[in-house]
Amino acid sequence: MHYFTPGPSALYFTAEDHIKTALKEQIPSISHRSKKFKSIYQHTSEHLRQLLNLPEGYHILFTGSATEIWERLIQNCVEKQSYHLTNGAFSDKFHSMAIAWGKDAQQLASEPGSCPDINKMNVAGGCELISVTQNETSTGAAQPLEDIYTIKKRFPEQLLAIDVVSTSPYLDLDFAQVDTAYFSVQKCFGMPAGLGVWIANERCVEKAIKIQEKGGIIGQYHSLPSLVSQAKQFQTPETPNVLNIYLLGKIAEDMLFRGIENIRKETEYKAALLYNTVEKHAGFEPFVKEKAYQSKTVVVAETQEPADKVIAFLAEKNLQVGSGYGQFKNKHIRIANFPAHSKEQMETLVDAISAM
Amino acid sequence: MHYFTPGPSALYFTAEDHIKTALKEQIPSISHRSKKFKSIYQHTSEHLRQLLNLPEGYHILFTGSATEIWERLIQNCVEKQSYHLTNGAFSDKFHSMAIAWGKDAQQLASEPGSCPDINKMNVAGGCELISVTQNETSTGAAQPLEDIYTIKKRFPEQLLAIDVVSTSPYLDLDFAQVDTAYFSVQKCFGMPAGLGVWIANERCVEKAIKIQEKGGIIGQYHSLPSLVSQAKQFQTPETPNVLNIYLLGKIAEDMLFRGIENIRKETEYKAALLYNTVEKHAGFEPFVKEKAYQSKTVVVAETQEPADKVIAFLAEKNLQVGSGYGQFKNKHIRIANFPAHSKEQMETLVDAISAM
Repeated sequence: MHYFTPGPSALYFTAEDHIKTALKEQIPSISHRSKKFKSIYQHTSEHLRQLLNLPEGYHILFTGSATEIWERLIQNCVEKQSYHLTNGAFSDKFHSMAIAWGKDAQQLASEPGSCPDINKMNVAGGCELISVTQNETSTGAAQPLEDIYTIKKRFPEQLLAIDVVSTSPYLDLDFAQVDTAYFSVQKCFGMPAGLGVWIANERCVEKAIKIQEKGGIIGQYHSLPSLVSQAKQFQTPETPNVLNIYLLGKIAEDMLFRGIENIRKETEYKAALLYNTVEKHAGFEPFVKEKAYQSKTVVVAETQEPADKVIAFLAEKNLQVGSGYGQFKNKHIRIANFPAHSKEQMETLVDAISAM
Repeated sequence: MHYFTPGPSALYFTAEDHIKTALKEQIPSISHRSKKFKSIYQHTSEHLRQLLNLPEGYHILFTGSATEIWERLIQNCVEKQSYHLTNGAFSDKFHSMAIAWGKDAQQLASEPGSCPDINKMNVAGGCELISVTQNETSTGAAQPLEDIYTIKKRFPEQLLAIDVVSTSPYLDLDFAQVDTAYFSVQKCFGMPAGLGVWIANERCVEKAIKIQEKGGIIGQYHSLPSLVSQAKQFQTPETPNVLNIYLLGKIAEDMLFRGIENIRKETEYKAALLYNTVEKHAGFEPFVKEKAYQSKTVVVAETQEPADKVIAFLAEKNLQVGSGYGQFKNKHIRIANFPAHSKEQMETLVDAISAM
């Protein structure tokens, strides 16, 4: 089966071989306090840093999932007030989580399938963190990078947190213009799930320390200061997902070898193919109408037929696409366009869709 | 290399084949909201339930690590006061975590290498949770099961939480006499790290709901009520470590086939070999003097020579044992005696030690 589901999805071309090599080299048996583990973390950290073009002073931290990072972010970087641009189920979930933690979590929402208009942002001076979900996996709407940089210029005092869960490393984000960003590895990195990657700068760490000094509880083993003090020695507070940390480094290395610019160009070519196909086909329509908001990595199409019929038709051809999310379950199909999806696979998929 | 480190350690005999089968069956690519994933969770849950002889009403929940479970346990089951039996680095860490969360965390400590005398326990009526680290991985001291059952009888009002991180499923714990227990998979299950397993009964869930109703914050996506409501549908709140959940079910099944009684007998045979060897050898001495407290799964020996010399000598023979923990780093060796360690491997190890 070819998996085009928006995460978990197809494994990256080299993932299986790297897992087999890891088994041969007994990576799962080494101590997470050993020199060998530290060199694995360092290798992963350095290659990811290069792949994402991370500036100095940005830490690379590991958690169990991106969902976990939402909660740690609220604990560590928001004492009282946060501001959330929301446009779908995942940005909503993060916003709800801030409310559950007793924060005054402001919200600027857009209709699903669109993105909030940043000109309408009304951020109070005391607000501590602004959250943008750059690529909303539930709807396929993507906030343009220019919007993110404009937000930073307009609100330099606030920490700016970007959800790049289903778009990094395709997204050419200038990290110097944001304070923190995070993703999970089962999307664009084409890896087995079970690892969240959190990138945070010193401003975030300082904020966490400030909250703690005021008597706030920022959590314990996975607080930012705890994660960062361990990361500086290429260590983690707990026994982590060693195999996935190893695998992430190997795949980052492979992507660098392939060239991140090539990956980006191919992603754009495949996205154009997909949008073209669903625009032309009478049975489909892109859910995101405004071209500037159309995600390149998660393409969502409204279906005239119930989506489950479309999905079953494609599954018979060994092509597994995702269903709609939540209220759109039987009205949308969602197609992942990740670096693990080759041009040839995508051409096969669009041919199958066109033939429907 | 044969890994006898006390976790991560040797992979279980069948782990590698199961990982390769999982790759062939594309388990890492399936959606965690699919029927297929639910059937994997159910398979794992049912086999683990049988292996551990779990009574009705005990939930099986998944986290990123056992370290995470410490924190969730404090958030969900302790409003004000907890009571900790401590005897080494890991039981100490859990106690410190409760303090960091602002709890009145009482402590009954023993010397490292021994276990607290439960007759000295002085638990206040308002205390909500008693914590016992059944098998202290840093020292190899194990609290006898009879102690645990006596504690439950003496303090039936308190929730009783047992750390079985480096001993389950060897330990024949009667879960009906405790409220919650937890472990990680890179110890006795012989799996890659990155998954914590939390077993909790309804009393724990009710406690969490009570704390929440009083306005306490029990955490969000990994709160007990959130984990349990998802687990009832064989689901998890976040995208979990699907590969490890699959693997855990397969290994539990393999262990059932081998027979848990056989595994226990073999563990005891190998433990006797190890303790005999270090008792007889002039260069070693068991760190835990009292036989009733000697762990069967983590054997710790004081070394006359600096431990790093002993470790290097054995490593040359492809036998990797663990160093001492913390202050004992160069004074102890720690030897894991897990189900993944065959009798033959253990005989090779004791021969090598005897020949020193």
